[in-house]
Amino acid sequence: MSDALFEILRKVTTATITTMLLKKGIRRCWMNGPKPLVPRGERLVGRAFTLRFVPVREDVATPESWGHPISTRAAIEEMPEGVIVVADAMGVLSAGIFGDILCARMKKRNVAALVTDGAVRDRAGVLTSALPVWCAGIAAPASVTGLTFVGWQQPIGCGGCAIFPGDVIVADDDGAVVIPQAMLEFVAHEGAEHELYESWVFSEVENGVKLPGLYPPNDDAKARYAAWRKSRS
Amino acid sequence: MSDALFEILRKVTTATITTMLLKKGIRRCWMNGPKPLVPRGERLVGRAFTLRFVPVREDVATPESWGHPISTRAAIEEMPEGVIVVADAMGVLSAGIFGDILCARMKKRNVAALVTDGAVRDRAGVLTSALPVWCAGIAAPASVTGLTFVGWQQPIGCGGCAIFPGDVIVADDDGAVVIPQAMLEFVAHEGAEHELYESWVFSEVENGVKLPGLYPPNDDAKARYAAWRKSRS
Amino acid sequence: MSDALFEILRKVTTATITTMLLKKGIRRCWMNGPKPLVPRGERLVGRAFTLRFVPVREDVATPESWGHPISTRAAIEEMPEGVIVVADAMGVLSAGIFGDILCARMKKRNVAALVTDGAVRDRAGVLTSALPVWCAGIAAPASVTGLTFVGWQQPIGCGGCAIFPGDVIVADDDGAVVIPQAMLEFVAHEGAEHELYESWVFSEVENGVKLPGLYPPNDDAKARYAAWRKSRS
Amino acid sequence: MSDALFEILRKVTTATITTMLLKKGIRRCWMNGPKPLVPRGERLVGRAFTLRFVPVREDVATPESWGHPISTRAAIEEMPEGVIVVADAMGVLSAGIFGDILCARMKKRNVAALVTDGAVRDRAGVLTSALPVWCAGIAAPASVTGLTFVGWQQPIGCGGCAIFPGDVIVADDDGAVVIPQAMLEFVAHEGAEHELYESWVFSEVENGVKLPGLYPPNDDAKARYAAWRKSRS
Amino acid sequence: MSDALFEILRKVTTATITTMLLKKGIRRCWMNGPKPLVPRGERLVGRAFTLRFVPVREDVATPESWGHPISTRAAIEEMPEGVIVVADAMGVLSAGIFGDILCARMKKRNVAALVTDGAVRDRAGVLTSALPVWCAGIAAPASVTGLTFVGWQQPIGCGGCAIFPGDVIVADDDGAVVIPQAMLEFVAHEGAEHELYESWVFSEVENGVKLPGLYPPNDDAKARYAAWRKSRS
Amino acid sequence: MSDALFEILRKVTTATITTMLLKKGIRRCWMNGPKPLVPRGERLVGRAFTLRFVPVREDVATPESWGHPISTRAAIEEMPEGVIVVADAMGVLSAGIFGDILCARMKKRNVAALVTDGAVRDRAGVLTSALPVWCAGIAAPASVTGLTFVGWQQPIGCGGCAIFPGDVIVADDDGAVVIPQAMLEFVAHEGAEHELYESWVFSEVENGVKLPGLYPPNDDAKARYAAWRKSRS
Repeated sequence: MSDALFEILRKVTTATITTMLLKKGIRRCWMNGPKPLVPRGERLVGRAFTLRFVPVREDVATPESWGHPISTRAAIEEMPEGVIVVADAMGVLSAGIFGDILCARMKKRNVAALVTDGAVRDRAGVLTSALPVWCAGIAAPASVTGLTFVGWQQPIGCGGCAIFPGDVIVADDDGAVVIPQAMLEFVAHEGAEHELYESWVFSEVENGVKLPGLYPPNDDAKARYAAWRKSRS
Repeated sequence: MSDALFEILRKVTTATITTMLLKKGIRRCWMNGPKPLVPRGERLVGRAFTLRFVPVREDVATPESWGHPISTRAAIEEMPEGVIVVADAMGVLSAGIFGDILCARMKKRNVAALVTDGAVRDRAGVLTSALPVWCAGIAAPASVTGLTFVGWQQPIGCGGCAIFPGDVIVADDDGAVVIPQAMLEFVAHEGAEHELYESWVFSEVENGVKLPGLYPPNDDAKARYAAWRKSRS
Repeated sequence: MSDALFEILRKVTTATITTMLLKKGIRRCWMNGPKPLVPRGERLVGRAFTLRFVPVREDVATPESWGHPISTRAAIEEMPEGVIVVADAMGVLSAGIFGDILCARMKKRNVAALVTDGAVRDRAGVLTSALPVWCAGIAAPASVTGLTFVGWQQPIGCGGCAIFPGDVIVADDDGAVVIPQAMLEFVAHEGAEHELYESWVFSEVENGVKLPGLYPPNDDAKARYAAWRKSRS
Repeated sequence: MSDALFEILRKVTTATITTMLLKKGIRRCWMNGPKPLVPRGERLVGRAFTLRFVPVREDVATPESWGHPISTRAAIEEMPEGVIVVADAMGVLSAGIFGDILCARMKKRNVAALVTDGAVRDRAGVLTSALPVWCAGIAAPASVTGLTFVGWQQPIGCGGCAIFPGDVIVADDDGAVVIPQAMLEFVAHEGAEHELYESWVFSEVENGVKLPGLYPPNDDAKARYAAWRKSRS
Repeated sequence: MSDALFEILRKVTTATITTMLLKKGIRRCWMNGPKPLVPRGERLVGRAFTLRFVPVREDVATPESWGHPISTRAAIEEMPEGVIVVADAMGVLSAGIFGDILCARMKKRNVAALVTDGAVRDRAGVLTSALPVWCAGIAAPASVTGLTFVGWQQPIGCGGCAIFPGDVIVADDDGAVVIPQAMLEFVAHEGAEHELYESWVFSEVENGVKLPGLYPPNDDAKARYAAWRKSRS
Repeated sequence: MSDALFEILRKVTTATITTMLLKKGIRRCWMNGPKPLVPRGERLVGRAFTLRFVPVREDVATPESWGHPISTRAAIEEMPEGVIVVADAMGVLSAGIFGDILCARMKKRNVAALVTDGAVRDRAGVLTSALPVWCAGIAAPASVTGLTFVGWQQPIGCGGCAIFPGDVIVADDDGAVVIPQAMLEFVAHEGAEHELYESWVFSEVENGVKLPGLYPPNDDAKARYAAWRKSRS
């Protein structure tokens, strides 16, 4: 069932998704920080696979640590196809969590995207890897300069949101949002309906209709929309 | 008279305007925050039409509030042609004050531009609306997620500047500045003169002249500039 | 000797340079703030020529000060060919330290680039000057609105790093790093070697090889790399 | 009726009030910033009387402005007895909105307290005035150094909260909270009940009872509390 | 053995401990944020027992969650005697992680102290509980207003430091530091020695000796110190 | 002459000093950051002796550097009696620039006070040294953990102000202000006059006089003040 819902969500903007979640009382679902490395107009949907960093400590965060069992390398090999990796870098912008090689490996494993409130390094190389990336910055230094990797698939914070493994992530040019599993169906169906309504409102505005009474709609606008909606089907 | 001054100001950079205002003792006139959504090299001039938000409170900032008499929708219908809307979003970057529909309606009403120290939502839709926008970020969530709209045409703060309704706003790729009405004529005429002088300095630099004695000018440079200026007319 | 090392460094990413410096115990070498005004994919190398600002004080930071013996104008005339100017603007983003004219003069003097943790003004004009610029923002107001210039070729802070006159600066799309003179040779030679190794790793990843055991390499990977490296020479 | 509710609220901690408001869906009611100038253990309750500042502009924010019709002086003379003044200083901590003289006048008018997300000036003098003050800092400069006063009894933001004239403010050593009028009765009665329950829990904890099952209570704890509560009356 | 080392550490300032750790290459060991709720001049030492929060999400961070198996209440019942609880509140200062009741229960379980980069609530009640607290602020709202509790005894970040369960924590009026287990003996013995040396330097300064040659010591100062040290034993 | 002016300034609050400087067009004279380590109600006046730090770099900021010719130790031995030391720590709060020993030596040399926008370490020891300190925080780590000392008696920034060696510093419970030499006499004499006037206003307010017309004074108030002032002499 998720597949069908994901297909629907690919046509629902993250802006609309946040409005649907607000109806359910959720105000903290948009991650403040991650932006598309290059805005491309694409929208991606996937399950969250989480990564967790804590601050650097010089005795444990070393280049040697990259070979340890608990390392970003090991985490990557555990990533299922199609997931969106969400990395809690605590908003640190002075160290890049991944560069060209790790991004290329994630791409090879068919990871859908990387989302982080931290930075990536080697911008040119990351673009070459073709992995879609939402991040809060670019920094040359390696992660161990400022961060210690401590594990994966744990609850994390990212950009002021709580992310649990398996939550659904949607990312587009406005950034990335998290949808709790229990609200997935509501958000997809109501969201798609909302998009349709907004496309009608936009065309009304193009035709010179005023906003009061239209958006939100009064009874007259509701009737006109219902008629338009019917005529489309 | 304003029209002629506005015409002159369209050829004066915001950088030069701040220098003219500094001569009048004004150091706080450039808004720290608003940037062109997409730098296009254009410069816009208009009277300020102000909007004011305060922080969100869950009992009043709701989707239902969009239909109230004091709402962003109602404010838009009060905007005269040619104004530059300046919205005080208190620098909140986790909620977008406007999306595609409201921007499209402003465009339809011939609003010249939107300037805010907050964010807009639905980047793709806002670009489609063709309303020129200077903002401090992009965020998917609706304004009511983080802000409560409380009125228009009041004094506001925006990007660390005080903006009063009717002040003159100039915006280009360096951002947006506010010119108090009483200094408008001075800024336009002195600014235009300064642009001419700087164009001559730039050509002198291209010819290899050193900066000391040229910029600011000593007597010799003043004489050479006077001669050049005369030869042009 | 520096020339040959600079030539090598032009092919080493700032990301790799930070990793080499980490091996020497240096974690603070990447300036947090300066970004290319427009990412162009180029990498520049040069000796640091430092400029220093302190906060504005209205009695000393005036347009008149631009003609004083200690002024940005005077400093520019002292800049040797090929240097990378690093300006400590204390991270102030509400005043632009240089505009089109000063950048044009620096370009004329064959300054290689300008790096600052502050802002530049007159974006369009700076781009016209063709001086490569790494900065943390764009601001219309002149430096004297927020800063007082106090001297050149002194130790400074820039983007959280200590910069001493004569340090080597490398800047690319990831930002700018400083290399202490004593580590220059190590960084250049080890860095070049590291780039070669990473290019091999990248091709291995493209061929589907897993990261654990490859990056960092186990004995088998080391042997394969050695063979590949030998085959190239 | 308010008087009786205010009397009750004087015995309910701001911590408990925020918990009661959370039950009503309100998460933004505690002002992040204002702290007691000197913690005294007192709790004050009153209607909000709001003041509003925008950023400084050198042509309007001058010592001369202190004599204008729209001035802090005029606002003070409009303050009814018993109100708690809430001043929106936009979090500016480099200018003090009031000093000894204005605080003394407010005290004379029987203003209950001053709450601001900004600073006060002349700490010693303010303490001498005996006006209870909750502020975010101390700063020597006058308000006009950083702020322009623009009016009173308008909706404002303070410490991340929306405050409307007439809202109820409660302030103690944890800071200041705002209670929307419509929730006043609920908060007072439920809050008082909650305080009683927590006092029982505290005594249970002192007796060595574990938290799980006690706080929040399971059926057994509920029964024991009911018995204790009954025995008190 | 730890007991003896802890006994020694109780007489070593956190300032000296950071200097000893710097000798081992550790610069990130002092937590930037936690301060004594009330400076008392005491110094506490204990093993770290970690708590972890992520940002609030309205569907999971509710008052009901306080009764769940993974809750702060359950965590408290797992705390061994003598530990110093270190809570990663991600520096959130708008919600208090614990109030009087939870602090009282921790005190009852002989927890040595609570250290957090967040806030506590109900300042008066926390002081009544007599649990020593190092925190970064006071806030009335409950943790669920801004945070979601997700577990205990995991690696965490606190005040910019990585803390692993079992690390040694020392807290005094300068704040709290973390000592990696492997460096405990070095820090205790060298630290105690350093304190002795500094007490001698202090008395030398009181006697009017200049700092150069004394601190750090030249050969003469070393000899005088050695003589003094010998005379004491 | 300075001595007499200093004597006058000891009775003028820093709040009043900032108002006098505002009359001269100076808005940036109060340092945002330094606060008395313990508010004592005392006011100190002295010439600025400046110290300058840049960010840490691991190859130069080491405990060994404490013995170098350019070191804080050497700087202290250059300090004349009665100066107020102003240290530019770039607002870094995670390293303490001085502890008990250096403060004790400064006290011994009759330094009047230490003012910094950074932190001091070993709070208890600094209090023991009896050197009056205005700082922005307390931190256990030594300066070399986060800062590199580079020199003394240079122009610096401190708390957003430019400080030049020889400027006059006044510090009290509201913090510290800088007075440019050229304005010293004006500030002292006008400030003393202003204090007298404000003491009269305060007594008027105590007597129930309204603020409008009194503060700033209208003609009637001016006359009454003149009479009162005359009666005192």
